[in-house]
Amino acid sequence: MSSPSLSSSTVRPSRALSSIRGSAIRDLLRVTERPDVLSMAGGLPATDLIPSDRIAEAASRVISEASALQYTVSAGVRPLREVVADRDGTHPERVLITHGSQQALFLSAQALLDPGDTVIVDDPVYVGALQVFQSVRAEIVALPITAEGTDVDRLERLLSDGVRPRIVHTVSNFHNPAGVTASARTRRRLAELAADHGFWIIEDDPYGQLRFAGRSMDPIPGDRVIRLGSASKILAPALRVGWLQASPDVVELVELLRQGADLCGSTFAQLMTADLLGDSDFMTAHVSDLRREYARRAAALTGALRTDLGAVCGVEFIEPEGGMFCWLRLPGLDTAILLDHAVRAGVAFVPGAAFAVDAGLGDRLRLSFATLSPDQLTEAVRRLATAVHDLGRG
Amino acid sequence: MSSPSLSSSTVRPSRALSSIRGSAIRDLLRVTERPDVLSMAGGLPATDLIPSDRIAEAASRVISEASALQYTVSAGVRPLREVVADRDGTHPERVLITHGSQQALFLSAQALLDPGDTVIVDDPVYVGALQVFQSVRAEIVALPITAEGTDVDRLERLLSDGVRPRIVHTVSNFHNPAGVTASARTRRRLAELAADHGFWIIEDDPYGQLRFAGRSMDPIPGDRVIRLGSASKILAPALRVGWLQASPDVVELVELLRQGADLCGSTFAQLMTADLLGDSDFMTAHVSDLRREYARRAAALTGALRTDLGAVCGVEFIEPEGGMFCWLRLPGLDTAILLDHAVRAGVAFVPGAAFAVDAGLGDRLRLSFATLSPDQLTEAVRRLATAVHDLGRG
Repeated sequence: MSSPSLSSSTVRPSRALSSIRGSAIRDLLRVTERPDVLSMAGGLPATDLIPSDRIAEAASRVISEASALQYTVSAGVRPLREVVADRDGTHPERVLITHGSQQALFLSAQALLDPGDTVIVDDPVYVGALQVFQSVRAEIVALPITAEGTDVDRLERLLSDGVRPRIVHTVSNFHNPAGVTASARTRRRLAELAADHGFWIIEDDPYGQLRFAGRSMDPIPGDRVIRLGSASKILAPALRVGWLQASPDVVELVELLRQGADLCGSTFAQLMTADLLGDSDFMTAHVSDLRREYARRAAALTGALRTDLGAVCGVEFIEPEGGMFCWLRLPGLDTAILLDHAVRAGVAFVPGAAFAVDAGLGDRLRLSFATLSPDQLTEAVRRLATAVHDLGRG
Repeated sequence: MSSPSLSSSTVRPSRALSSIRGSAIRDLLRVTERPDVLSMAGGLPATDLIPSDRIAEAASRVISEASALQYTVSAGVRPLREVVADRDGTHPERVLITHGSQQALFLSAQALLDPGDTVIVDDPVYVGALQVFQSVRAEIVALPITAEGTDVDRLERLLSDGVRPRIVHTVSNFHNPAGVTASARTRRRLAELAADHGFWIIEDDPYGQLRFAGRSMDPIPGDRVIRLGSASKILAPALRVGWLQASPDVVELVELLRQGADLCGSTFAQLMTADLLGDSDFMTAHVSDLRREYARRAAALTGALRTDLGAVCGVEFIEPEGGMFCWLRLPGLDTAILLDHAVRAGVAFVPGAAFAVDAGLGDRLRLSFATLSPDQLTEAVRRLATAVHDLGRG
C-alpha cells in the first residue's frame, strides 16, 4: 500500500487535506509485505476464513437479475436495511447502508462537524477516525484510554471545565489498537453525559461479533448514539458494506450528504450481503467458526508472548477476549527502534507511536493475531524475542 | 428515491451540509415512479441494455478467489488501473479508481478547494457537481452554457476582471442536462486559460463513449485537467466503478483523502470491471449495441417532438449526437407548472429550473431517451403534447 508524501507535491492541497496525518501504518505495511516477513502489523481479517464459496453463491443468485446492476437509493437497498435492523432490534428507517463503516464515520463527521468543533477520541486512537476528524478540521482532544474503555471520569472533568464536545468517538468492543472493551459503567456514563451535555457518541463497532471469551456487552444506550457496524470482519471486506444506526434525523442528514459523496452503494453487493446476513443458520455457524479460530490464534500468540518474549523483557498486555489485536507494553523499550531489528529478524508489528495523539506510547506496539496460523504466530514471537535481544545488545 | 427535508430535522447540521441544495430531481423521481407514468425524468442508463450475463460471468470468474474478497489499496486494483490507462493512452500512476465518478468529483473538490474558493460551472449544471461544490462551501460562479459547451469567451472576460477560479467544471460530452458537446475551440481555449491562470479543469465525462452521430472529440488537452470517467453508463451502475485521470501529484492527494473517506473500493467489483473492460472484443460489440439502440430511441423521441409536440407549441432543441438526454425549450411555457399537467397525463420529465444556478431556465426541460422503448417514447411525447394543450386551456 502506498502512502503519498504531501511535501513532494507541487499541487496546493486544501486546508482540509493538509490537516490529515498520513497513515504511518500504510507506509509500514509496504515495507513489511516482503514474503520472508511474518507480519502481525496488518489490520485485515483472515483471508483464509472468508466464506468465499457462500459469497460466490450469493453473487450468482443476485447478479442473475439486471435490476441488481442498476443504481439504488442513497440509504441502501431495503432488504439489507431490514436485515440489519432485524439483527440489531431496531427499525429500518434508523439504518443507513454505507460503503464500509469508514464511510459512515466520514459522512457522520461531515454532517455534524464544523471546523473548530471539539471531538473527543481515545488515546491511542483508531487512525481512520483521527484522519476523518482532521479532514473536517475539528479540534481533537484525546483522553488516554483505560481498561474500561473511554475515560469517562476524565471526560466528566473536561465537561465541568467547560469543554463542549460535539462528538465523542470510541471503538466500544475490542478497541483498535488498545484491545479493551468499554465496561457497562463506561457505556452508561457516556450515555448520561451525552444526554446532559448534548454531544453525539459515535460507537464504532466493527469487532463486536468477534467475541471468543467473556461476556457480551449491550451497546451504548440512549438516543445520542450513532452506531457503526460492518460486514468486513464477519463476511468480507470487499463487499464494502457497513452501516450506521441513528435517529431518523441523523440518517436523513447523512443520506443527503451521501448523494454528493458517491450517489449510492452497489445494489448487487448490498443484495449479496442481505442474502448472507439474512441466512441466520449460515451466519451462526460461520461466526462461531471465526470465533473459535481467532481464539486459537490469540491463545497461540499470548502463550508465546508470556514464555518466549517474557524470557527476554518485561511484557504487559490484556488478554484479548475478541477482535483481532493484542496491545503490548514493553517497559523501557522504544518500539519504533525495535521495529528495524524486528524486520531484520523477519517479523513486523505496528509501533504504538503510530496510534498516539498526545501520549507518547513509545513503549507500546500492536500485534494482530488474525492473519497468521498458530504455528506462524509462535515463530513470529520467537523472532520478536530475537529482535528484543538484538536491541538490548545495541 | 427519498430526499430529506432539512427543515424538519432537530439535529443541527454542519455548515457544509447546510450549504447543499437537496436534489429536486430525487424528490421528483419519487412522485413519478407510479407505474402508469412514462418517465423521461430519470438519469439512469437502460436496465435492459446492461450486459448482465457477461457481468455474471465476470463475477463467477473473479469471486472464486478469496483474495478478491479482501481489502485493496486506496488507488484501486492494479489490473483495473492498467486497463483504464491503456484504453485512454495514459499511465496507470495517473489513474485512480473511485466508487463511481461522483466520488472522484467529491474527492477532487475536497482535495483542492477551501471554503470561499471560486468554482466555475455551466448553467444549467450537473446537480451532483453543484452539491459537491456547495458541500465544500465554494463560491460558485455559473456561466450560461453555449452550443459549444462552456462559454470560454465569458470565462476569459471574468479572468480579465480578476476572478480567480480554482476549478472550472464541465461535462464535456453530451452535457447533463444541456446535451451539448464542448467544441475543439472550447477545449483548446479552456486548456490555454487554465495554463495561463493556474486553475484546474474537471472534465466530467461519463457519456463520451455513447456517441451515435457526429465526430468524436479529443479530450481537453494539457496538464491542468482532472478527467473523470465511469463504467456506469457503458457497463452497469452497480459496479460503482469510476475513475479519475490526473497528474500523479493530484492522484496522490486524492488517494490520501480516500483513506479517510472509505479506505478503498471493492476488490471483486474492480477485478470484474477489469475483466469486462479488458475484453476488447466484447466491449466493442457491446458499446456498438448501446450506441445503435440509444440512437434508435433518440430518433423516436426527436421525431415525435417535431411532429406531435411541434403541433401544439414551439419546440427548440439540439439534436442529440450521444449520451442519454435531450434538452428542450418550450418558449413561453413554465415547465414546472407543465409538470403537474404532464403527470396527470401520464408522463414525467425534469423541469429546467431543477438544473438552474442563476439563469431561470423556466421554459426548459430535460428528457431522457435512455430507458423507454421507441414506442413508449412516442406515446410519452403524445401525452406531453396533451399536457401542453391542457396547460394552454388553463
